Amino acid sequence: MEEMKKAKVIFQPSGRRGEVDLGLNLIEASRQLGVDIEALCGEKKVCGKCKVRIEEGLFEKYGVNSSRGHVSEWQPEEGKFINGQEREAGFRLACCCKLAGDVLVFVPEESRAGKQVVSKAARDIHIEHNPAVKLYYVEMAEPSFEKPTGDFERVMDELRREHGLEHLRVDYLALLRLPDVIRQGKFKVTAAVWMDKEVIRFWPGKVTDYYGMAIDIGTTTVAAYFCNLATMEVITTVSMMNPQCKYGEDVMSRITYHMMNPGGLERMSADMIEGLNSLVAQACEFTHPPKVKKKDEKGKTVKDEAGNPVMVEAPEEGKTYARLKPGDLVDMTIVCNTAMHHILLKLNPEYVGMAPFPPVVHHSLDIRARDLGLSIHESSFVHVLPNEAGFVGADNVGVLIAEEPYKSDQMQLIIDIGTNGELVLGNKEKLISSSCATGPALEGAQLSYGMRAAPGAIERIKIDPATHEVDYKVIGRDAWRSFSKPEEMQTKGICGSGILDVLAELYLSGVILKSGKFSSEQKSNRTRVNPDTKQPEFVIAWKEETSIGRDVVVSQKDVRQIQLGKGALYCGCKLMMRRMGVDKVDVVKIAGAFGTHVDRQKALIMGLFPDCAIDHIVSVGNAAGDGARAALLNREKRVEANWVARNVEYIELTVEKDFQQQFMEAMHIPHMKDDFPHLESVVPEEVLKQK
Amino acid sequence: MEEMKKAKVIFQPSGRRGEVDLGLNLIEASRQLGVDIEALCGEKKVCGKCKVRIEEGLFEKYGVNSSRGHVSEWQPEEGKFINGQEREAGFRLACCCKLAGDVLVFVPEESRAGKQVVSKAARDIHIEHNPAVKLYYVEMAEPSFEKPTGDFERVMDELRREHGLEHLRVDYLALLRLPDVIRQGKFKVTAAVWMDKEVIRFWPGKVTDYYGMAIDIGTTTVAAYFCNLATMEVITTVSMMNPQCKYGEDVMSRITYHMMNPGGLERMSADMIEGLNSLVAQACEFTHPPKVKKKDEKGKTVKDEAGNPVMVEAPEEGKTYARLKPGDLVDMTIVCNTAMHHILLKLNPEYVGMAPFPPVVHHSLDIRARDLGLSIHESSFVHVLPNEAGFVGADNVGVLIAEEPYKSDQMQLIIDIGTNGELVLGNKEKLISSSCATGPALEGAQLSYGMRAAPGAIERIKIDPATHEVDYKVIGRDAWRSFSKPEEMQTKGICGSGILDVLAELYLSGVILKSGKFSSEQKSNRTRVNPDTKQPEFVIAWKEETSIGRDVVVSQKDVRQIQLGKGALYCGCKLMMRRMGVDKVDVVKIAGAFGTHVDRQKALIMGLFPDCAIDHIVSVGNAAGDGARAALLNREKRVEANWVARNVEYIELTVEKDFQQQFMEAMHIPHMKDDFPHLESVVPEEVLKQK
Repeated sequence: MEEMKKAKVIFQPSGRRGEVDLGLNLIEASRQLGVDIEALCGEKKVCGKCKVRIEEGLFEKYGVNSSRGHVSEWQPEEGKFINGQEREAGFRLACCCKLAGDVLVFVPEESRAGKQVVSKAARDIHIEHNPAVKLYYVEMAEPSFEKPTGDFERVMDELRREHGLEHLRVDYLALLRLPDVIRQGKFKVTAAVWMDKEVIRFWPGKVTDYYGMAIDIGTTTVAAYFCNLATMEVITTVSMMNPQCKYGEDVMSRITYHMMNPGGLERMSADMIEGLNSLVAQACEFTHPPKVKKKDEKGKTVKDEAGNPVMVEAPEEGKTYARLKPGDLVDMTIVCNTAMHHILLKLNPEYVGMAPFPPVVHHSLDIRARDLGLSIHESSFVHVLPNEAGFVGADNVGVLIAEEPYKSDQMQLIIDIGTNGELVLGNKEKLISSSCATGPALEGAQLSYGMRAAPGAIERIKIDPATHEVDYKVIGRDAWRSFSKPEEMQTKGICGSGILDVLAELYLSGVILKSGKFSSEQKSNRTRVNPDTKQPEFVIAWKEETSIGRDVVVSQKDVRQIQLGKGALYCGCKLMMRRMGVDKVDVVKIAGAFGTHVDRQKALIMGLFPDCAIDHIVSVGNAAGDGARAALLNREKRVEANWVARNVEYIELTVEKDFQQQFMEAMHIPHMKDDFPHLESVVPEEVLKQK
Repeated sequence: MEEMKKAKVIFQPSGRRGEVDLGLNLIEASRQLGVDIEALCGEKKVCGKCKVRIEEGLFEKYGVNSSRGHVSEWQPEEGKFINGQEREAGFRLACCCKLAGDVLVFVPEESRAGKQVVSKAARDIHIEHNPAVKLYYVEMAEPSFEKPTGDFERVMDELRREHGLEHLRVDYLALLRLPDVIRQGKFKVTAAVWMDKEVIRFWPGKVTDYYGMAIDIGTTTVAAYFCNLATMEVITTVSMMNPQCKYGEDVMSRITYHMMNPGGLERMSADMIEGLNSLVAQACEFTHPPKVKKKDEKGKTVKDEAGNPVMVEAPEEGKTYARLKPGDLVDMTIVCNTAMHHILLKLNPEYVGMAPFPPVVHHSLDIRARDLGLSIHESSFVHVLPNEAGFVGADNVGVLIAEEPYKSDQMQLIIDIGTNGELVLGNKEKLISSSCATGPALEGAQLSYGMRAAPGAIERIKIDPATHEVDYKVIGRDAWRSFSKPEEMQTKGICGSGILDVLAELYLSGVILKSGKFSSEQKSNRTRVNPDTKQPEFVIAWKEETSIGRDVVVSQKDVRQIQLGKGALYCGCKLMMRRMGVDKVDVVKIAGAFGTHVDRQKALIMGLFPDCAIDHIVSVGNAAGDGARAALLNREKRVEANWVARNVEYIELTVEKDFQQQFMEAMHIPHMKDDFPHLESVVPEEVLKQK
């Protein structure tokens, strides 16, 4: 009966999991597993900050059958912070839930104490101002018996005369509002015109600012850029976990979910649409500044006649925005991988998951917001960028139109590492693309102490080759371990960007060999055999340096996982170079959060991608999102996207000659002399000599 | 208390009304008022044929406050024939409803014993076959690693290669079905393409027949032509009363209803959409032939293994149709007047009802069926033809593209008489149009014994000039009065097409004068003074010849009503001719049911329109509906319609110089010598001499 006293608990989105004593509350469980849930009041049930959602369902990957019934009963205090709808959706206060069985707990962004470091901020890339939706202002004469022309033709005549717009259509729902708008504006009207083809909205009088959103839907996270389409300014960036994560962490398991569950596709799509609507609402909320008490010049609170303080809005310094509603957004662009694309749009994803992986559609789509159930202006179009192939989707097209390798003389290798790795190689002569199954390890998932990039995650490490002593740095603390007291570190795990750093150091210090195996010669007690798994492991942080009460280690199995991921990527790059007929690349661009944090030299040492001069390895941030933003603000980028999606040659790596052989070899840490001349000076002689 | 024993009862759509004793059932009431309700079982409550709908509301025009509570309680027998939804909508069996107060009763088409003679059958006009929606069949190779092209592009490539179609869009909802359709058809697919621009539907395999509907929405009646778009065949014609009649009989009262009732516009629109959906369902029902017992060659019933008779479909002789559902219709065209257009589409009709009467839009509209809530295929477009002006709508454009006066050398006058009169004058050089308020009299409404064209309605009459004796003919009986026994006539009233006949005879026989006044010289007891109104009246049919138990008469007031209508029309024609600078027309075309039944010579005698050779006066039937059908089957007609709507010059008659003077003069019966040389031989000398 001993084992009945523990419950399996998984916290999402961090993915931290483990077994915890029954009867503990979720705040206590989160501490044990290294997850920080906001709990300002110290579990006194009065701050309401520790809102979490208990998921229902069988999560096979974890062997967990999660149920809302596996935590203690609803408490009246929770009702103060959780409304009926939220309760229906499974929300609880973590401090009020005692464990009675296995659960999967989703911790919303706002409940995370150490908020995740989202590296999806908009980059400052150059975009020509030429949005798909443009505003045109016209003034007209009122109807008379001499000229009783109808309202629509009256506006059209002026749009033609003043702005040269011919043959405009009008969306039916926009037309419905015209007769009242035109009179409200005293025959002065602003029209929003989509692609110089169709009027999607009329406003009375003159309007100048108008808004749109560019969205990057990743398998795990969704980032959105809320833009002023007149000024191109990014008003705010908002993000969320992909709400489909509960149906499966990777694309294949979501496709499987669709195939096994009638209505599953509709459910996943509806969840994403609801999520996008909440992102839109969240972005609009940003334009509703909090109210503060109005002060006079002496700093005294101004009061109204009744003696109540007068409240005024407190906008961010130097910024004033219109108070916007979702209906104020008149354009949206979306990038995502092909599977996410199909699931979002309810396009049957079954065939894109089966060889030869044909998507339902490559070309970009312009779908009326109301047909998708999106809350932005009903007549507006959502522009979904084109797919290259089954495994290289619109997100990769987004990267391409942001980076424009097809305009370059240089042979560029562009790597976008997510759960899936997407590769593009080429220059203005030719572009080829492929995808490789890098797996979750390079993102830090499914490793013993892997975690997302959040405070407490190890992001840098040094191992002394002589003593195997360790120094490291965690996110959220500037001082390295060697300059800190142990208890100041509050280490929790290792994040994706840190993992390659760790591996490279393990290799450079001789802890592991070229093959990835732990060396039999070890120089400290940090190398040991795990009593449960009987596998060797290396201690990075001792228990007393952590906030989780256990040593943070890297195991032999962790090393293998990373080798599988990096091997898939390296092998993909090499096969593409072979196809292209080149033996070196001029530039390596790394897209995504991974690129932002990875140590380029150590990535090279590990053989993540082929040799390249260090200063020609560049991080391009969330280039997919930048591409979505470029397409939002410049309609020519949409044309370019369709062109490039059609003109990139997709290579299916798994059917390439000797793929298996190449993949096996790529798993090893590379021979520096032969393959990485740029690294010769960096790697110690004795390490290079390893077999 | 005496007056409390009577209830006001109005039957729609016939418009027959009167006071009836309380306690009578609705079948009895209908007999008293000359309305025939089907009652096969003789009021035994077992046939269910006498279904009627009791309307709720205040009908100001009639001074009737109708309520479902004004008839006796629901009886269990009614439940056998009336389902819950119908009961909710106010349906009852007429034989089960005893009168307890004032009611307005709607008698649906199927419950009318003497079904209305609808003259809206499709004419055999020449139409080029070039529908807006066309089918294209393609066969494709299956995806392979060499060519893993997506489903949509795979179809598009073949449509381009085989059929030369470039740059096709696809409706999102059509795309959703593609991946399954393409595999179900084993990579053979038929695509329905709208205007060579957008795919609106995919079918697996090869499809040849496909369907659409052309609709003519009149203020009072709605007619629909259900067509095979491949063969141009009119499969069936269906019609109904305009369900908006309950909000007001004419367009102005419906516009007023919108202005006085929040949500009134949406209610009227929803009623029409529901009505159109029922027309579509009714047309589809026609393709579901009744089942009959299968017979062998000896005429014996074939039975199945269980001994039950085998049932087979019994299609109409020589016709076999696919069993169609509303979703099988992929195109629809609509014509209607401008007010009906606006109300159908929920476009604010307030301004089109106020000088200078600007419509919200002139140009034709293509509206997605799903945006209107129509039950035809969700991706299909409904094409609403363009409006000329506030009082000359898409129905007139329909007439024009059916009659094509703009291709003729002859000066044509085209008259469409409904509640409103619409006039077009011109030839290939120039076209002008106008509208005139003919009022309801020319349709037989609002006259003492006016009624719709249905069995029992007087349609032809002769009055002996010497004796003022009367002979007449009613719809539904071939023999004239003089060849029948009185009780065989079963006369009920006078229909619109008969009314001008009656008036012309009254004039030619000297019963009335040129001014319309009853002559003081009368030759029979048929002329008398009504004791209630103190006005003169002329008896057409004596009580014993009628089924309503009263004499059918034409009163002085009736004559005035008709004069007002015909005067408006004649004055409009003359003012347009003055504008055009012509003093005669080559051809007069009369559209609508009125044209089909009117005696051309008698219409000329009454001065309904300017002089023209009798054989150049032609009836063109439901030319508006023909125009809708032409636009359904030939997309070039849509272009032509927009061209003509823009190029007809609309004349607002009421602001023309000396309009009042002209109108007053036009009310008189005309001077034959001066204005109607074609009639000189027809009208007796002594009548012509009248002042």
